[in-house]
Amino acid sequence: MKAIQNITLLGSGNVATQLGKALQKKGITILQVFSRNPENATQLAHQIGAMAISNLQDLDPGADLYLICIKDDSIGELAGQFPFKDRLIAHTSGSIPMDVLSNNEHYGIFYPLQTFTKDQSVDFLSIPFCIEANSPENEEKLMHLAGLLSEHVTKISSEQRKAIHLAAVFACNFSNNMYAIAEDILTQNGMSLDLLKPLIRETADKISTASPQAVQTGPAKRGDLEIMKNHLQMLADSKEYQDIYRIISDNILKQN
Amino acid sequence: MKAIQNITLLGSGNVATQLGKALQKKGITILQVFSRNPENATQLAHQIGAMAISNLQDLDPGADLYLICIKDDSIGELAGQFPFKDRLIAHTSGSIPMDVLSNNEHYGIFYPLQTFTKDQSVDFLSIPFCIEANSPENEEKLMHLAGLLSEHVTKISSEQRKAIHLAAVFACNFSNNMYAIAEDILTQNGMSLDLLKPLIRETADKISTASPQAVQTGPAKRGDLEIMKNHLQMLADSKEYQDIYRIISDNILKQN
Repeated sequence: MKAIQNITLLGSGNVATQLGKALQKKGITILQVFSRNPENATQLAHQIGAMAISNLQDLDPGADLYLICIKDDSIGELAGQFPFKDRLIAHTSGSIPMDVLSNNEHYGIFYPLQTFTKDQSVDFLSIPFCIEANSPENEEKLMHLAGLLSEHVTKISSEQRKAIHLAAVFACNFSNNMYAIAEDILTQNGMSLDLLKPLIRETADKISTASPQAVQTGPAKRGDLEIMKNHLQMLADSKEYQDIYRIISDNILKQN
Repeated sequence: MKAIQNITLLGSGNVATQLGKALQKKGITILQVFSRNPENATQLAHQIGAMAISNLQDLDPGADLYLICIKDDSIGELAGQFPFKDRLIAHTSGSIPMDVLSNNEHYGIFYPLQTFTKDQSVDFLSIPFCIEANSPENEEKLMHLAGLLSEHVTKISSEQRKAIHLAAVFACNFSNNMYAIAEDILTQNGMSLDLLKPLIRETADKISTASPQAVQTGPAKRGDLEIMKNHLQMLADSKEYQDIYRIISDNILKQN
């Protein structure tokens, strides 16, 4: 296997910025940065010693990897316009199937499992990278590249990537909705979510060393039916909150 | 108001240990540590320059505050056996009503909103303290004491304390159950929750500066019915998970 040594970034947003900077620090050359918006391309290219382009016809064919770092719903279109067929191309999305890249000979997924914010530098070392490719050799190349950045590089299948996405909906999107309901209850009673922030952080930290099922606490875990009845009465104004309270409590009770 | 200068702790567990050490550092004298188990009493007393007692008859009447730091379901019993009537007594629980202390002249709540673990020193500065008392003077005393430790001291009513508890069930207990479901989905697909831990931490961190409703993401937030249908199909083996997925997604959809 010839290791990836130079890369062209397709995209200039948060993911492109963070990955570009981190890879450059590890000795990877960033050849070009492509963005439809010339200013965005120039701004990022300038930071990482690359050439800015805003037209796909200007793509240099000499990159070892073309890394797509753009919004999920634009990946398919960009992939369709990619001018080469025999170059390695990969995208960085958790939810877009790999086969949107399948009109190329060499393709794969290079998916860092974290959300990135602008201007906030990321420590990739602890961020899991999920790798998938259309051939063992391409997989090895992408695994090796991810291994320059992170200690947690995992080979996953498209099926597994779907399961990760579903699990993330529960662990992240739905948790956040639980925070929103808590905030609603507190503000209705003249208080702020600030009161619970240390506890929320502790709840998320606790599972870094223990299984969530092992550290489950609360009225449902204790089987405290009296408190649960009181809580449902307090939620009498909102059938939605009552339903959520009941159905998650039932799920916790079942684990006892 | 005469500020509280010396305290007797009733209890020798995590809360008593953490509060005792932190208050002593702030110049408060810990007179006595009471525990039915003489060894536990001695161990904590030794660390904070107090006298250990294991019999309520040995309580020194000279403390400015008797602080109950024991398990919720034992507070009522201990309060009933407290030998003085005209001393300030308070408990540290979020869910026990204040009136379990009402056979005393002076009583209140001194409730730090965090879970404490053994041997792990706590930075109280950012931990919210919720204070309630049977008179403005007692309230002021407890507020002042909490203010020695924390920048976030709040006066709350018993009604508000109930609402905090309910909100914490959503924000902490139910979030943790969402982590447990995510772990179940991942292990069923041959993966570990480790993959999602950085994202979980980020989700909890994000609300330190923004309202959860403002940072809600995911298929339901985007109204992506296609993905939601796929997810429900992937959950076909578990009616519970389907119900939870559906009902929380509905709640998120409604906020759009």
